[in-house]
Amino acid sequence: MRRKSLCAGVVTLMAVAGLGAQEPLKSASFNLMPVPTSMTVQAGRLPVQASFTAAVTAFSDARLAAGLDRTLRRLERRTGLEFPRGAADAAKAALIVQVEAAGSRVPSVDENESYQLTIDAARATLKAPTVVGALRGFETLLQLLAGDRDGYYLPAVTITDAPRFPWRGLLIDVGRHFIPVEAIKRNLDGMAAVKLNVLHLHITEDQGFRIESRKFPKLHQLGSDGRYFTQDQVRDIVAYAAERGIRVVPEFDMPGHVQAWLVGHPELGSAPGPYEIARAWGVMDPAFDPTREALYKFLDVFFGEMAPLFPDAYLHIGGDENNGKHWNANASIKAFMAKNNLADAHALQAYFNQRLVKILKKHGKQMVGWDEILHPDLPKDIVVQSWRGQQSLADGARKGYAGILSSGYYIDLMEPAARHYAVDPLPASLGLDAAESARVLGGEATMWSEWVTPETIDSRVWPRTAAIAERLWSPASVTDVLDMYRRLATVSLQLEDLGLQHESQVPVMLRRLAGTHAIGPLATMVSLVEPVKGYRRGREKPGGGLTPLTGFVDVARADSMAAIQFRIAVEELLTDAPRFRDRRDDLLTMLTTWRNIRPAVDRLIDQAPALRETAPLAVDVSSLGSLGLEALSFLASGIAPPAEWRDASLARVDAAAKPRAAIELAVTPTLRRLVVAAAEIPRLGTMPRDAWKALVDKLAAPPAPPKPR
Amino acid sequence: MRRKSLCAGVVTLMAVAGLGAQEPLKSASFNLMPVPTSMTVQAGRLPVQASFTAAVTAFSDARLAAGLDRTLRRLERRTGLEFPRGAADAAKAALIVQVEAAGSRVPSVDENESYQLTIDAARATLKAPTVVGALRGFETLLQLLAGDRDGYYLPAVTITDAPRFPWRGLLIDVGRHFIPVEAIKRNLDGMAAVKLNVLHLHITEDQGFRIESRKFPKLHQLGSDGRYFTQDQVRDIVAYAAERGIRVVPEFDMPGHVQAWLVGHPELGSAPGPYEIARAWGVMDPAFDPTREALYKFLDVFFGEMAPLFPDAYLHIGGDENNGKHWNANASIKAFMAKNNLADAHALQAYFNQRLVKILKKHGKQMVGWDEILHPDLPKDIVVQSWRGQQSLADGARKGYAGILSSGYYIDLMEPAARHYAVDPLPASLGLDAAESARVLGGEATMWSEWVTPETIDSRVWPRTAAIAERLWSPASVTDVLDMYRRLATVSLQLEDLGLQHESQVPVMLRRLAGTHAIGPLATMVSLVEPVKGYRRGREKPGGGLTPLTGFVDVARADSMAAIQFRIAVEELLTDAPRFRDRRDDLLTMLTTWRNIRPAVDRLIDQAPALRETAPLAVDVSSLGSLGLEALSFLASGIAPPAEWRDASLARVDAAAKPRAAIELAVTPTLRRLVVAAAEIPRLGTMPRDAWKALVDKLAAPPAPPKPR
Repeated sequence: MRRKSLCAGVVTLMAVAGLGAQEPLKSASFNLMPVPTSMTVQAGRLPVQASFTAAVTAFSDARLAAGLDRTLRRLERRTGLEFPRGAADAAKAALIVQVEAAGSRVPSVDENESYQLTIDAARATLKAPTVVGALRGFETLLQLLAGDRDGYYLPAVTITDAPRFPWRGLLIDVGRHFIPVEAIKRNLDGMAAVKLNVLHLHITEDQGFRIESRKFPKLHQLGSDGRYFTQDQVRDIVAYAAERGIRVVPEFDMPGHVQAWLVGHPELGSAPGPYEIARAWGVMDPAFDPTREALYKFLDVFFGEMAPLFPDAYLHIGGDENNGKHWNANASIKAFMAKNNLADAHALQAYFNQRLVKILKKHGKQMVGWDEILHPDLPKDIVVQSWRGQQSLADGARKGYAGILSSGYYIDLMEPAARHYAVDPLPASLGLDAAESARVLGGEATMWSEWVTPETIDSRVWPRTAAIAERLWSPASVTDVLDMYRRLATVSLQLEDLGLQHESQVPVMLRRLAGTHAIGPLATMVSLVEPVKGYRRGREKPGGGLTPLTGFVDVARADSMAAIQFRIAVEELLTDAPRFRDRRDDLLTMLTTWRNIRPAVDRLIDQAPALRETAPLAVDVSSLGSLGLEALSFLASGIAPPAEWRDASLARVDAAAKPRAAIELAVTPTLRRLVVAAAEIPRLGTMPRDAWKALVDKLAAPPAPPKPR
Repeated sequence: MRRKSLCAGVVTLMAVAGLGAQEPLKSASFNLMPVPTSMTVQAGRLPVQASFTAAVTAFSDARLAAGLDRTLRRLERRTGLEFPRGAADAAKAALIVQVEAAGSRVPSVDENESYQLTIDAARATLKAPTVVGALRGFETLLQLLAGDRDGYYLPAVTITDAPRFPWRGLLIDVGRHFIPVEAIKRNLDGMAAVKLNVLHLHITEDQGFRIESRKFPKLHQLGSDGRYFTQDQVRDIVAYAAERGIRVVPEFDMPGHVQAWLVGHPELGSAPGPYEIARAWGVMDPAFDPTREALYKFLDVFFGEMAPLFPDAYLHIGGDENNGKHWNANASIKAFMAKNNLADAHALQAYFNQRLVKILKKHGKQMVGWDEILHPDLPKDIVVQSWRGQQSLADGARKGYAGILSSGYYIDLMEPAARHYAVDPLPASLGLDAAESARVLGGEATMWSEWVTPETIDSRVWPRTAAIAERLWSPASVTDVLDMYRRLATVSLQLEDLGLQHESQVPVMLRRLAGTHAIGPLATMVSLVEPVKGYRRGREKPGGGLTPLTGFVDVARADSMAAIQFRIAVEELLTDAPRFRDRRDDLLTMLTTWRNIRPAVDRLIDQAPALRETAPLAVDVSSLGSLGLEALSFLASGIAPPAEWRDASLARVDAAAKPRAAIELAVTPTLRRLVVAAAEIPRLGTMPRDAWKALVDKLAAPPAPPKPR
C-alpha cells in the first residue's frame, strides 16, 4: 500500500487558490475542530474564574474522573487560575457532567461517542451516553475557551455532536524508524484533542521488529537494533489510549515486509537466508514461506502472545507489497502451488490469509489488511484498509466488506492539509446504498516513517492531521478551506500545549544546524519552503534507515503558512486593481525581508557546512524578493514593464521553482501571478477587473502540468 | 537547608559589570565548558567527513561501546553526515579510543575521570584509565566540533584533563513538584555533557512521597497524588545515569519534611494525625517520633528495600529544618528526652541520627545530610552537605568530616550564572591544609522545586548549571565571567540538542499565554526581565503545590542575556566618549523596539487575561525605551539635558525597577547609567574619560543597597 498513493484522490490546491475571497465563518464555528454536527450560538457567556468547579451528577468511574481532572488542569494551565479542589457542590458547579454509563470496557468501534454541551451564563452542562462521549465533549469545551478584557469565558452555545464515521485513525509506523513511548503518548493526546479514536501501530517492518516477544525473543533481540516496545510499555500505551477513548490496533505486516523477523528466525522465510535488518527503503523480496506448517504453528503461538497485549477486536496483518520474488525462486513453494492449484502469488497469499484468519479468530481477533487481502475466499468480517482509493473501498462495500480509507491521507507525502481535507471517504458520487455506505467505517492518516524521527514526527503529523480528523468526524458539508486553515492555526497552538513539538522543534533544529541563536533569516527561509511532495524525497536526497534526518528539509514543513499568507495578500492586492494599494505595505515588508535574506544566510552557511545545500535557495529567495518588489513597483506606477522583463522574470521564477536539496519554494506560483499581473497592466484598461484577474490567473499557470507521482 | 541560603556567598553581579572591557579568550578555550585542566592548541585540523570512523583499541565494554555510539550519532546529527557502521579499521580510524579498564562497576566518588585527548590532522586519540574518563573525553570532543567553508573539523589540540573535585552534583527536588522520568533523563544527558557526576534525587518531601514502596505501599499510594517513580523507573534512571558515569544519590529527608509519609503511616509521627499531603510551601511541623522503637524497625525494613535500588555508596537522610514543635508538644517525647538527658531537639535529632547511621551501615550505605546533622556523636564517615557555606564546610573538614557545598549554588533562587560561578567551594582564604582540603569533596547545584514543573525545570537548571559544573571541574583560576558567558551561549545550544527544552519551551509558553503565534513583542519583553530573586517569589505572587505555574514569571529566566548585551553595548558607547558612536546604532535599534512594544502587547493582553499582570511591565519597557532614546540623543548632540530631566528620568527608572507580578526588569541598572551619563556631559570636558566613566558609575549606583534576603 505504500508506493503508489494519492493518484486516486486527484485533489489539488485549487481549493486554496480562492483563499481570501471568502468571508471566514468565525462566528459560526469559533475555533472548533472538528466542527460539531450542530451548534447554535446564544448571547451571553459563562465566566471562567478562580471559583470554577465541576460536578459529576450521574454515572462516574475512574476514567471519567481522570478525564475531567485533565480538563480542569488544562483550563488552569491556560488561564493561570487555580480552581478549588475536592468534591464540588452540584448546585454551585460551573460545569455539570451527566453521563449515562461507562460504555465499552475496551474502546470499541461501536462506541457511542455522542455528547451534548449546553453553556449559558449560569453553567455548562455536558451530557453523554458514555464516558467516551463525555471525553469528546471535554475537548470541545476546552476549544471554546476564550478571553477578553473581562476575563476568560465560555461562550453560550448549544452543541449536539456525534461522529460521521466510527473509525478515525492515525497510523504510526514505528517499524522504519522507531518512535518511543513518550512520543506516542503526546501524539495520543493530540489525537484525543481532535477526536480521533484509533491509533494504528505499524509495529513490524523490514527495518525493525518493534515489540518484545517473550515466546520468540530473537525477534526483537535481533530484529530491532535494541529499539522496541517492551510488553510493559505496550500495556502502558494501550492503557493511556483507552483512558482517552482511543483504540490501539497493531499491525504485524505479513507475508511480505518481514525481513526483520527473519534475522532471528530465518526458518520462516522463503529463501535460505541469513537475513539482516533492511537499511534501505522500498519493497524488499523476503517473505514468509506459507507452504510450511511450522509457520502456522509459529504464528499461532506468536498471536497467542500478542492478542492479550492488544485488547482491541481487530488485528492488522498488512498483506501489502509482497512481490512474490522469493516465492517464485523457491522450487518447493512452486511445487506446492502447482499441487494446490494456486495460480499465482496472489492466490498463494490468499491461501496464507485464509490460514491466518483462522488463527486470528482462535485468538479472538478480526482481521484487517490492505487492499491486497481482498479475495473471494476470505470471510466477510475482515476489514480492508485502502491505499487504492474510494472506488476500491466502494467495490469492497458492495461485496460486503467493511473498509477504511487511507488513500488521500498519506501524510508522509508532505501534501498540504487542504489536499487531504478535500478527500471524502464516502462521496455521494460512489452511489452506495445505506447498507453499503455503513460498511465504509472511516479512515486513517498514515505516518509512514522513512523520513521521520522521534524529533520530527510531531511536525509531520500536526497540525495537518487535525484537518483529516475533521473530515472523518464532521458533516460532509463542512468544506470551507479558508475557515479550516483559520481554525487549524489555533488548534495547532492548543496541540502544542499537550506537549507536541511541531512548532517548537523547528527553531531547535535550526539552532543545531546553524550552531547559533541568531537564526532569524533561516527561520524566514524555512517558512517559505516545503519538502518535495510524494516520493521525490528519496530520489532527490537519498538516504536509508541510518541516515541522520537533521537537515533543512527535515525542518521544513508540509504546509507553508507564509506562502498561504503571501497568496492571500497578492489576491487582495490584485482585487484592488487598478489602485493596487490593499496589502501593498504588507507585501513590501515581506518581499523586502526576502530580498535582504542573503548576506545573513550566507554568513550562517559559512559556519555550518550542513547548511551549504541551502545556498541556492537563499539566492532564489533573495532574487524572488527583488522580482516581487519590481512587480509591485510597476503595479503601483501603472506603467507596464518591458516585454523582456516579463520573460526574464518568469524564467527566474521557474528556475526557482525547481527543487533543491529535496526542498521547494512554496511561493513561486504566487510570484508568477504577480509578475504576469505587472506585465498585463495594459490590458487592465481594456476589460473588467474580474476578467483581467482571470486572464492573469490563466497566463500565470505553471509552464507544464505536474507529472503524476 | 532551604530558607536561608546565599548570604554566605556575598558575590554580586559586579563581576559582570566589567563585561566588554575584556578580550574574549576565544582562541584559548574554544567553546569548552568546563575548561580543561590543560590544553595546547596546534596548527591544523582533523576533518570530520562522511568517512569518519572510530576504533576502540584497548579495553572495551558495553558502556564504552554505547558511549562511543552516542558520540558518533551526535556528531552525525550535528553535521548531517552518515558515518560508516560496523567495526572500524584502527589504522584508518579518525578516532582512536584507548581505555585501560572499566573502572568502578558502580559509579563511585573515587572514580578516575581523567582523560587525554590529542587531535592532529591524521586522527584524534582519546586515552583514559577508565571508561568514565573516556565518556568525559567524548563530551570534550563533541564540544570541539567546528565548521567553516572547508567543512566540519576538530581543531588540533592536546588536552590533559581531570576534575578539581570528585563530587559534582545536581539536586533535583522531585518531592515538591514531581519530575517524571523523561525530564530526569534529559537532565542526566545535560549533566553528562558538562561533566557533572552526581544526580541527587530529593525524593521525599512534605508535599510528596515519590517512590514506590512494595513493603509499605501506603507511602506512595497515599502520599504522592499518584505521581511517583515505580521501582522499575528508578532502576531505569539509575542505569541511565550509570551509563553516563553519573551516580544517583537518593535523599529521604527525615525526621522533618516527612508529612507525606505520615498520610499513609501516621503512627510514625510525633502528633496523633491524621495527616494530609502539604499543599503550602515552608517548614512544616510534622516529624517522625524518634522515641519509638517501631520507627527504627520500620526504617530498617524501608531502607532494606530502598538500598538495593540505589547502588551508590551514599544515602542522604536530609536532616534539615526540623522545627521541633511536634516534639515539644508531645509529653511522651519530652519524657524520653528528660530520661535520656537529651537537652533539646538538636540532641534528640542527633540521637535519631545515631540510630539511623547504624541502620544505613547495615544496608551498606554511608550517611549524607545537611549541616544540621553535624554532631560530635556521629561517626566521621558521614558527609555533610552545606547550605550554610564554605566556613561551615571548613569547620567540618577540620573536625574530620567530608563535605560538599550547596550554599551559593541554589539555582532555585533565580540568581544569574555569574553569581554562582564566583562561589568557590574551597577558597584559599579558608586556610585548610591538604588533608582538610581533600575532605571538601565538591558541590551540588540545588533545584528545589516550589516554582518548578516538568515544563519549566530545564529553563531553571540550564544553562546556569553548566557554569557551576565548570566551577567544580576546572582549575580555580578559571574565573573570566565574560568568557564564561560567551561559552555558555554555545553550550546552551548543545544542551538543547540533547532534548533539553530550556530554550524551546519559552515560545511555547508565550503562545499558550497569548493564544496566538504572533508573540514577537512578548518575546522581547520576556527577554528583558527576570523573576524576582531569592525567596521573594512566594511573597509577591503566592501559590502552593496546586497552583498552575504557567504565568509570565514562569517563562522569564534567571539570566537576561538581552540585559547583558544591553550592558555591554552601553559600556562600549560610553567608552567611546565624547563621540558616543560605538554601538549607537545597535542601541537605537534595541531602544526603539522597547519603546514600540506597547500597542502590540496591549492588544495581546486584551485577548489574554492571564497576561494582564504584565501591563505595567509593558508600560515600563516602553517608557524606558523612550528614556534611553532621549539619553542617546543628548549624548549624540553633546548638549546636557536640563536638571529636571535627570531627576524625572531617574525617578522613572527607579519606579520601573520595582518588581511587578514577581518579575523585575533586568535593564534598569544600565538605563540608570545611560541617564546619568547624559546628565554628566558637562563634566566630560573637565576630566579624563576614564575618570568621567567612573564618576558616572558611582552616580548611577542604585539608590539603596539591596537588603539581605
